[in-house]
Amino acid sequence: MAETLMSAAEADDKAMGSPFMKSLVAIYRAEDSYGAWESKSDAELLEEFIVTAEERRAKPIIDDPDPDLLDRVDKFYRAIGLTVERETGLMASPMMSMHWEGFGRVILTAGKLVIFAKSLRDVHRFGFESLGDLAEAGMKVVRQARETIDTYPEVARA
Amino acid sequence: MAETLMSAAEADDKAMGSPFMKSLVAIYRAEDSYGAWESKSDAELLEEFIVTAEERRAKPIIDDPDPDLLDRVDKFYRAIGLTVERETGLMASPMMSMHWEGFGRVILTAGKLVIFAKSLRDVHRFGFESLGDLAEAGMKVVRQARETIDTYPEVARA
Repeated sequence: MAETLMSAAEADDKAMGSPFMKSLVAIYRAEDSYGAWESKSDAELLEEFIVTAEERRAKPIIDDPDPDLLDRVDKFYRAIGLTVERETGLMASPMMSMHWEGFGRVILTAGKLVIFAKSLRDVHRFGFESLGDLAEAGMKVVRQARETIDTYPEVARA
Repeated sequence: MAETLMSAAEADDKAMGSPFMKSLVAIYRAEDSYGAWESKSDAELLEEFIVTAEERRAKPIIDDPDPDLLDRVDKFYRAIGLTVERETGLMASPMMSMHWEGFGRVILTAGKLVIFAKSLRDVHRFGFESLGDLAEAGMKVVRQARETIDTYPEVARA
């Protein structure tokens, strides 16, 4: 049991070391003007992204996402933009357009290039089983965005 | 006097003939599921875009735009997307992200290409002095978008 707990903690540590997670933490810390979260660890800040399988099952199939959740989705894509920016030097801005019923679209642009675009659905179910899953999902989008930049570098710089 | 009125009417007719204005009218007509605007002429439909110099002067310098006005701005950019689509065969989607205080950003994309991007400010003052001005403003964005497509055609088709 102790061994399992340890390896989960190790997995979390590894996840927190990914460039995407560092960007996400930076976004949270930047918004903490009054230091209300100063005593929280980085991993604790991101705990609200974790939705276990049981929690997910308990959610209704259709539901309107609450503002906190939409803010979380927004932070997720801003962290991707920030990571791309840190790695490529290109300003990558996310733009999200959400219907209040929980569907919408998010795009990330750099210069005149759309480096990532996705339709969002069932946003009320947004969440990840572990910090590792969150890190992986974020890094996957970062990689896709960077591949698109590599394909059209002159457009990303336009 | 009669001559001036006639030439204003002629100018309106000419404006209504532009591809942008035809797209804008098409968007209004498509939303009129119950035929409430059937008796209105095309020019009458677009009357709400007209803000005279006096009306503009009467507006406060800072104000929150009302939902009808935001809807008008949205229709303006959707009509640009539709015009680009009709002229190039490329699906051009607008995406608008507005803060309720009246500033924001609008972008139009085709494929992986950002064909137009603009920061919006003072949206509560959105409007045009005449149908001619409206047509001209719309066609100007259409031309800019098409020039961007001509510069990076393979990205617009990606």
